[in-house]
Amino acid sequence: MQSKELRVNGQRLRESMEHMAKIGATPGGGVQRLALTDEDKQARDLFVRWLNDIELGVTIDEMGNIFGRRPSRNNSLPPVMSGSHMDSQPSGGRFDGILGVMGTLEVLRTLDENQVETERPITIVDWTNEEGARFSPAMVGSGVWAGALEKDWAYSRTDINDNRFEDELIRIGYKGKAACAQWPVYCYYEYHIEQGPILEREQKIIGAPKGIVCLHWYDVYLEGEANQVGPTPMEGRHDALCAAAEMILKVNELPERMHGNLVATVGEIQNHPNSRNIIPDKVHFTVDIRSWDDDHALRAWELLREEFEEIAARRGCPIKTEETWKVQHSPFDEKLVRRILDVADQLGYPNLHMVSGAGHDASYMNQVCPTAMIFVPSIGGRSHVEVENTSWEDCEAGANTLLHAILQSAQEG
Amino acid sequence: MQSKELRVNGQRLRESMEHMAKIGATPGGGVQRLALTDEDKQARDLFVRWLNDIELGVTIDEMGNIFGRRPSRNNSLPPVMSGSHMDSQPSGGRFDGILGVMGTLEVLRTLDENQVETERPITIVDWTNEEGARFSPAMVGSGVWAGALEKDWAYSRTDINDNRFEDELIRIGYKGKAACAQWPVYCYYEYHIEQGPILEREQKIIGAPKGIVCLHWYDVYLEGEANQVGPTPMEGRHDALCAAAEMILKVNELPERMHGNLVATVGEIQNHPNSRNIIPDKVHFTVDIRSWDDDHALRAWELLREEFEEIAARRGCPIKTEETWKVQHSPFDEKLVRRILDVADQLGYPNLHMVSGAGHDASYMNQVCPTAMIFVPSIGGRSHVEVENTSWEDCEAGANTLLHAILQSAQEG
Repeated sequence: MQSKELRVNGQRLRESMEHMAKIGATPGGGVQRLALTDEDKQARDLFVRWLNDIELGVTIDEMGNIFGRRPSRNNSLPPVMSGSHMDSQPSGGRFDGILGVMGTLEVLRTLDENQVETERPITIVDWTNEEGARFSPAMVGSGVWAGALEKDWAYSRTDINDNRFEDELIRIGYKGKAACAQWPVYCYYEYHIEQGPILEREQKIIGAPKGIVCLHWYDVYLEGEANQVGPTPMEGRHDALCAAAEMILKVNELPERMHGNLVATVGEIQNHPNSRNIIPDKVHFTVDIRSWDDDHALRAWELLREEFEEIAARRGCPIKTEETWKVQHSPFDEKLVRRILDVADQLGYPNLHMVSGAGHDASYMNQVCPTAMIFVPSIGGRSHVEVENTSWEDCEAGANTLLHAILQSAQEG
Repeated sequence: MQSKELRVNGQRLRESMEHMAKIGATPGGGVQRLALTDEDKQARDLFVRWLNDIELGVTIDEMGNIFGRRPSRNNSLPPVMSGSHMDSQPSGGRFDGILGVMGTLEVLRTLDENQVETERPITIVDWTNEEGARFSPAMVGSGVWAGALEKDWAYSRTDINDNRFEDELIRIGYKGKAACAQWPVYCYYEYHIEQGPILEREQKIIGAPKGIVCLHWYDVYLEGEANQVGPTPMEGRHDALCAAAEMILKVNELPERMHGNLVATVGEIQNHPNSRNIIPDKVHFTVDIRSWDDDHALRAWELLREEFEEIAARRGCPIKTEETWKVQHSPFDEKLVRRILDVADQLGYPNLHMVSGAGHDASYMNQVCPTAMIFVPSIGGRSHVEVENTSWEDCEAGANTLLHAILQSAQEG
């Protein structure tokens, strides 16, 4: 068989996915496979067994990242790496993360059964704790590997029951011996569900994000004056929740006022004393702004801040704002992105050059080596929920695209 | 001394108040004297000692309500009753409730030292658990006494540590033998801080509320669609918090749109999943509407509900509303209210015919016998907070007004 005619086995990919979906399955059809839990261990054990079945060299590092290496004609060359993560959100879906790991496994199984030899080694990876749902923050395994986060700091993170990350890693038997530190990688691919509705709306099957948008997080604190609601006339009230409500709507209208290229969201709010007959005197809320254009995002925040000041002054509710986290937009490797679009074209899959609105392990890998991602449609744009779904046909199409992207990179000298 | 020239001893009233303020004193100058705690017991013990000092007949009923009876020329006549409560909010002030009890005690001490004999007995009362801050709901002692609430139900109420009301009542030694059930009362006065800013704004010293406004409580539940904020474009979002924000502003603007005679407040909000990078999919908030005119309040809610439906439909966030509690407005006895204004005039205190925006034990007493209240200014309109304050001059003025209102009623045959 000509290598151009190679295709993954869609049925086998589906069976791998369905097998994994049983581990931590939730009644609503999703999965709960939080990092370093017994379910995570079960998934890891099964994954390692499958790696051994195709005789990959398995390495587990100090952060529990699992690597499986497929040798090549020239084993001294840095490998092509591909993978994602197997942990999930508390009420997560059956596709987020695991599709990139099972997709890569399917690629390697396909190469194996067709006895395809490559110039470079290919390394599959499962990164530890991408979600950050049990141990904050997210993307810790790839972050430590890439040198962006400190291992000891990661070890010291605790879950809500005060279990330490390192203790849980040891408990499930996945604190490996290999140093968690970057080694030469030729390029990195990550295959993932889109987690948004754009491919579906545009009737495309494959998305190749040109990179990941910037991420600006702010915290807003308002003070009002608590009084009993009955005896306190409307005039002269200082209601911190009303001030917050005005601001939340300003955030929601921001993208339109900035002529797009931006999403802005208030996801979290705390209200004090949160009693139905007392005027709120302390409100905290968050603002999340993302854009492909960092300056655009900053100008949007400046506009917001002026409006917030005006609202706070008018309502007599002193305001404090904090910049909590700021990550610049991160363009992927243009050649790899182009390759994914070309491969999709050759395979006959309608495709889209887009952006990724969410962070991924690919964000850290992008700091280390040429990186790109492959997206497939999320039905209804839903993710991080039990109803998260992608058609099996699209899963197969994404894996075929990944297969040929990896093959092209792995045949480069 | 002519009885018209009688005046309370302002200094003694202040000392009683300051003495009580030490029991459960908080660092910020307020008090924490939650119902049926050790602090409540201390205040009760002191109160009973003071009642005994002026030889009142003390009765404690099954709900822990404390009555002190001053005999008269005709002990078979129903007494004039006056009092309030000694429990406080968690971070409450030094005046709410206790002023009405200490004010009545000062009236009785004044009558005692001046050997004033009245036609009718006078009964001072401390009602158990007016605040409802530890055991919900509020005004339980007067509610059971008036026959509006069931004693066994009240007994079964628990605090956040699952302590039963009855057990705590027994523990502090205030489950009395007397039945908690109404007996004939000629009329009821309650002297209280205003808990609002109106007397201060109008530069009045005495307020006589014509009654208590109606109280309508609603609960609103919104559903949105949870998605990761980054990959989800603004178009097509169903953000339940944004829908709630619009509604909160509608509630805030409602009184002006209804041309006044109304206050409307959102005091409580819950947001789900309340995560900064997930679009909110479930929001619950409360609406509190109060007016002297029940129909006006109902029309206001109808207007709101139509607007809520429009917002919910436009944002694709299904809405459910519930009517949680509805109390009609409650006019006090016109003759007694008039008497308070006349007494204040005679004593030279600028006074105001107003409404009470908050419920009081007087609400339940108003169902049983002619009832009226005396308000004195709350500095800055603040109450239920540590900085709650009223000038000692105004406290004395309120007690003098109470003295003569009680005297006039107690001399009626």
